[in-house]
Amino acid sequence: MASISRLQADHYIIPLPQVLEDSMHGAMENFEVITARVTDADGAEGVGYTYTCGVNGGAIADILTREMAPRVAGRDADLIEAIWKDLWWACHYGGRGGPTVMALSALDMALWDLKARRANMPLWRLLGGYDPRVPCYMGGVDLHLSPAELVEQTHRNLEAGHRHIKIKCGRNALREDVARMSAMREAFGPDMPLMTDANMKFTVDGAIRAARAFREFDLTWFEEPIPPDDPAGHARILSEGGVPLATGENLRTLWEFKTLFDSKGISYPEPDVTGCGGVTGFMKIAALAEAHHLPVTSHGAHDVTVHLLAAAPNRSYLEMHSFGLNDYIETPLTVVEGHVTAPETPGHGVAFDWDKLEACRA
Amino acid sequence: MASISRLQADHYIIPLPQVLEDSMHGAMENFEVITARVTDADGAEGVGYTYTCGVNGGAIADILTREMAPRVAGRDADLIEAIWKDLWWACHYGGRGGPTVMALSALDMALWDLKARRANMPLWRLLGGYDPRVPCYMGGVDLHLSPAELVEQTHRNLEAGHRHIKIKCGRNALREDVARMSAMREAFGPDMPLMTDANMKFTVDGAIRAARAFREFDLTWFEEPIPPDDPAGHARILSEGGVPLATGENLRTLWEFKTLFDSKGISYPEPDVTGCGGVTGFMKIAALAEAHHLPVTSHGAHDVTVHLLAAAPNRSYLEMHSFGLNDYIETPLTVVEGHVTAPETPGHGVAFDWDKLEACRA
Ligand SMILES: [Mg+2]
Ligand SMILES: [Mg+2]
Repeated sequence: MASISRLQADHYIIPLPQVLEDSMHGAMENFEVITARVTDADGAEGVGYTYTCGVNGGAIADILTREMAPRVAGRDADLIEAIWKDLWWACHYGGRGGPTVMALSALDMALWDLKARRANMPLWRLLGGYDPRVPCYMGGVDLHLSPAELVEQTHRNLEAGHRHIKIKCGRNALREDVARMSAMREAFGPDMPLMTDANMKFTVDGAIRAARAFREFDLTWFEEPIPPDDPAGHARILSEGGVPLATGENLRTLWEFKTLFDSKGISYPEPDVTGCGGVTGFMKIAALAEAHHLPVTSHGAHDVTVHLLAAAPNRSYLEMHSFGLNDYIETPLTVVEGHVTAPETPGHGVAFDWDKLEACRA
Repeated sequence: MASISRLQADHYIIPLPQVLEDSMHGAMENFEVITARVTDADGAEGVGYTYTCGVNGGAIADILTREMAPRVAGRDADLIEAIWKDLWWACHYGGRGGPTVMALSALDMALWDLKARRANMPLWRLLGGYDPRVPCYMGGVDLHLSPAELVEQTHRNLEAGHRHIKIKCGRNALREDVARMSAMREAFGPDMPLMTDANMKFTVDGAIRAARAFREFDLTWFEEPIPPDDPAGHARILSEGGVPLATGENLRTLWEFKTLFDSKGISYPEPDVTGCGGVTGFMKIAALAEAHHLPVTSHGAHDVTVHLLAAAPNRSYLEMHSFGLNDYIETPLTVVEGHVTAPETPGHGVAFDWDKLEACRA
């Protein structure tokens, strides 16, 4: 046993190399990273993080510093389940969801990193170990691109090693979405796994209409057609639209996933380790998916999530996210033939360039 | 039209006169109040607030100051629905729930107060007006009290004008809960409206067992038997337990209430204006309840909520909350024969004693 001697939270605002756009979040010029560093009594360290598309990072850092740090000080760092549950209930009244779960996710990730480092094992082996070579896809935030620009971007992604591509949808006219998919299929053939993501743009009936229009493109999945608060709506879109559904980046707990599973409105659950309760939350959601005979995919934070999908027997594609931290970490993942490989370094292996981050301090 | 010139948030930590206890939150020594003050270009002001049982107030204030203030500056203060929707989506990724909704609730309350003050009307009249005399009950946070102490506390509450009483349940042994209810019925007879609140202590089966044991006490409702994330569980408890169910203080949106209504597991929805999306959220939840042929009750913030129930034709009891701000506002409500009356002063009429609050600044 080693007790926690320190939890340090830091808040950074990182400019995006180019402005990104999707259907609901508008133009995004930067993103926020909130890191959580746990040090134990032996001086060992674990690092976790969460991120936002530009809002609420200050609140997340405040929760880590003001509420969570004093509550974890002195506790046995190995008892992650006990810490998780106590913090969940300590923050429950003002925190079931939103920034609180994101803070808890960052802390939980740090505790798992610490545990794996102390065990001198990579996280994916510590978690059970399935297969380190994980299929991945490139998730573009590209609603602003024309069909020709989309094809050009995809050529670059294929050159970079990608084989599976997701594009945004939800432009003002459905025929624009269709034109973009047409251009992709024309340029890259019928066999390339292709997904699309509406970022909650549609109504239920609008999503059914869209899914029917998308059917001819044989999509792997149609992501987030509507907001996450309507489980019955998801079920209608899936059964009437006839295209597999993915969602999860805006679900914040195991129980929100459970409600959606119960509705039978999901094909590809996609938890985000930085927002679903951390490694602890993610692995339980993966198990829940397995119990429902479903694959598990992911959202965001691919550098850490590769370990989780390398430990999950029902894993599907890992999302390679456009909010990449590649420029701020020491050894970014390399994509080879549409796959990445979970590293053998202890912990999750993500080493931040703290000096470079310092320049982005909020 | 008057545009918003300023949104100021302040965070206070207020000691409780005595330590309070319930089944899930343990001993509470203080509570937090986060105020939101909106000033328009004419110098008119609206005041809103939210509160927590001691955690996440810093995050709520940060969201108001950092995220919401710049986004509302210059906007038409009358367009509350437009502001609400824009902030909901601006904060959605890192904020669907928890501290963000509480921040939004405080701001929304301030905007409604401003609107009503500018119209020179009390809020309850502005909102439609039903009946200013609202039945209320005293909600004790009293799990730590013995049956004799509970009876003594209730005598004091009756002397203070209360006629309807809620006590906590969820002690270690069910027979202790039963003993407390027995003592209450013995002391105050079979007709006094009596509720009980478990603060999410039970499992579904445990709650059914408890409800069956409570049946002989003819409770008005059994509140929050389980956490809010299990709509189907609520339905089982209601139908198998045979006691009306109340819940809502931990539901954070109209859509969470909708999911619970759909499950048919609720008898008394109890939104909290400071955590369900403000006046805007509360009145929509009241309308949703009316559509489901259900009453609407409330949680917390009775000084403002009296206006909302005075405007709702399906209103049930107003909760008089133990985290009273009575010592920090100028004209607390007076309870007469189990009722309070919404005032005729413009706005919600809650005037904080800012000097006294200043001593509690976080
Ligand atoms: Mg997405
Ligand atoms: Mg309650």
